[in-house]
Amino acid sequence: MIRPVEIIQKKRDGAELSPDEIAGLVSGLLDGTVTDYQMSAFLMATFFRGMTDRETVALLTAMLQSGKVLKLGSVRAPKIDKHSTGGVGDKISLCLAPLVAAAGLAVPMISGRGLGHTGGTLDKLEAIPGYRVGLSPARFERVVREVGVSLIGQTRELAPADRRIYALRDVTGTVESIPLIVASILSKKLSAGLDGLVLDVKVGRGAFMPEPKRARRLARALVRVGNAAGLKTVALVTDMSTPLGLTIGNALETREAIEILNDRGPADVRELTLELGTEMLLVGGVEPSRGAARKALERALADGSALERFSRMVRTHGGDVRAIERPERLPRARSSVVVTARRSGYVTAIDPLALGWSSVALGAGRARAEDPVDPGAGIEILAPRGSRVTRGEPLARLHANSKARAETELERVAKAFELGARAPRRTPLVVARVR
Amino acid sequence: MIRPVEIIQKKRDGAELSPDEIAGLVSGLLDGTVTDYQMSAFLMATFFRGMTDRETVALLTAMLQSGKVLKLGSVRAPKIDKHSTGGVGDKISLCLAPLVAAAGLAVPMISGRGLGHTGGTLDKLEAIPGYRVGLSPARFERVVREVGVSLIGQTRELAPADRRIYALRDVTGTVESIPLIVASILSKKLSAGLDGLVLDVKVGRGAFMPEPKRARRLARALVRVGNAAGLKTVALVTDMSTPLGLTIGNALETREAIEILNDRGPADVRELTLELGTEMLLVGGVEPSRGAARKALERALADGSALERFSRMVRTHGGDVRAIERPERLPRARSSVVVTARRSGYVTAIDPLALGWSSVALGAGRARAEDPVDPGAGIEILAPRGSRVTRGEPLARLHANSKARAETELERVAKAFELGARAPRRTPLVVARVR
Repeated sequence: MIRPVEIIQKKRDGAELSPDEIAGLVSGLLDGTVTDYQMSAFLMATFFRGMTDRETVALLTAMLQSGKVLKLGSVRAPKIDKHSTGGVGDKISLCLAPLVAAAGLAVPMISGRGLGHTGGTLDKLEAIPGYRVGLSPARFERVVREVGVSLIGQTRELAPADRRIYALRDVTGTVESIPLIVASILSKKLSAGLDGLVLDVKVGRGAFMPEPKRARRLARALVRVGNAAGLKTVALVTDMSTPLGLTIGNALETREAIEILNDRGPADVRELTLELGTEMLLVGGVEPSRGAARKALERALADGSALERFSRMVRTHGGDVRAIERPERLPRARSSVVVTARRSGYVTAIDPLALGWSSVALGAGRARAEDPVDPGAGIEILAPRGSRVTRGEPLARLHANSKARAETELERVAKAFELGARAPRRTPLVVARVR
Repeated sequence: MIRPVEIIQKKRDGAELSPDEIAGLVSGLLDGTVTDYQMSAFLMATFFRGMTDRETVALLTAMLQSGKVLKLGSVRAPKIDKHSTGGVGDKISLCLAPLVAAAGLAVPMISGRGLGHTGGTLDKLEAIPGYRVGLSPARFERVVREVGVSLIGQTRELAPADRRIYALRDVTGTVESIPLIVASILSKKLSAGLDGLVLDVKVGRGAFMPEPKRARRLARALVRVGNAAGLKTVALVTDMSTPLGLTIGNALETREAIEILNDRGPADVRELTLELGTEMLLVGGVEPSRGAARKALERALADGSALERFSRMVRTHGGDVRAIERPERLPRARSSVVVTARRSGYVTAIDPLALGWSSVALGAGRARAEDPVDPGAGIEILAPRGSRVTRGEPLARLHANSKARAETELERVAKAFELGARAPRRTPLVVARVR
């Protein structure tokens, strides 16, 4: 029998907890011997005191063992996943997963829904008519084995303790704690039976951890703890000071991901897809070098095999593949308005946070977890960072289910575009590689 | 509508909360819009970040306003109370309250039960057969007006938010936070309609805050915040490195308090009673000087008027006054055993913490709030600090409801007595006066 108050006090006073103490706390939360209010006091004490790697491994192990752990034993190919800490316009998973599957990996990817100002892969997938994000573990394994890629939603069976703890963190101001973030991400990922993981840790204004120093600390902690827990883990720290690509919103982003799979689309989305894909192929050991990995990926984009994987996955999940062949069949919002430049100049910056929240307000995200999203709502960027506009020219197009609703965001989106006299310097997309 | 998570984050990040934010949090806890787990996260954040005096005043005001506030309008005499942070053998309230009442004050004292290793005034009063600690507010006011003193238990009507918050702190490792302690003590005291308050802040091994620095910080915070909240407040920091007096346990301590009221009893108990009483008379403004106050108190002990007040109060509360006239009528435990010295020497120290917990184990305290106490159980110190014993001579007598139970504590109590070659130096009883 553990005494929860003693464990809380120990953490509060800065001592290291034993793996048994941490396991007792987590299992106690599930069996009711540790209350929600005790766990939230513990989480706040952890926010202030942090955790050693040994404690973080113990926490993620306890969360992992709170539920089912998939084995995916019948899948031969290396099982490699990617996880992003969340950004605005981040549709990379949709094009990256089928791409690396075409290049020889198996991608059992469990994704989430939109949260705060960032969108979620599940919401983007559900913009495809008929796509079902819920599969049984057995069916998930079969799709990964036969198609090489399956993108599904979180299930009740995997890491239930993580879900309980995350829900508490969300309402008690304890989200922004590096060891808690690390344990949460890795427990979910380890429960899917992976061999390796590539992390995309966002940095900059639109990221959950905007400051470069903290983002790097998070990336290093993820890589250290992931490897300590037996998962081959690499992280890229990537720029989120501007939205990724030219679209924000579910169907809009799915369309952009399909463009990438058609060997077109915005350069930054393509580049980040290739960078993360290269890391995945190297972690999976299916290509001998960075150069070879990159070539294999470019080939899979050029010869249509990546797009073909995506279509097969969508069909297997019950989705309408005609929407992939002809993306104009994807849902569209009823109304749109254009935001125009109030002066002439270069677009020197686009605030991703403002655009993220505007997109939520237009209907693409949720105020509460149980709200539905409007698949067609969102924002198209018409004047990307670095472009030159003259007064009155369009900056963005806003999509919503009514003109009135779209117009409510005109002001915020206009202000999100910074206009200056000189073209801005190019910023690197990949800020750091942590291994 | 306040957003609890934003208030938690603000405190977590070190910003000062507005009185409205704090009031919203406290009223939200009572009306259910703030959950227990949010409050406990807030309490832990407060443990780490502290509170400004303005925040602490806002917290105590919110807790005060969560319930009824007594006015005691019909009581003419200055209403002055004493509060101790809790010590081992601390029976001062029992003799002090009737003493200062005899000297012209009104004492509306709301007391608590034993907690951890320390006893509670209510448990000691209930050792007197028939004594009822529960009075209605109207009856409480009448007793204070007519007798000058009434000692009752906490009622549901006063500061309910404090009770809720204290219960949470107890199980979430957030007891030892100075602003939370200050707000809790003062909200309870202010709800009794006081004009002034004298605090006895214990320091040393048997105290809840053993280190002198923290005890002084607590005393200063209590005095500052008490005065800021409109209550004339003074504090003495007093020694708790050794048990107070020669008895620990409910009936044993009540008997010792009656001895003090009979102008006898241990010197330290008498001295602390006079010191605290002097402060109370000065705060109440009923004596012109420290010397005059002390004289008035000594007179009330010598002429029997203090004892007479105590008897009247006990009678009014339904208690059997014959137990006061003949204290051998107070409950006694069925069995007792004597602890003897294992070597010869001076008693250089007596560990109050060990004796406090032993006394709980003998039946004088509780493991859980709902447990009953054994009024006769406890410890008599036969060889006080500074006395010389030879091997085999008695150190203490243990009282319990069975010989077997008494014997379980022989070892711990023997070890609590430190024996040395030289007589220890006298330590001052009052360490500091804070005003």
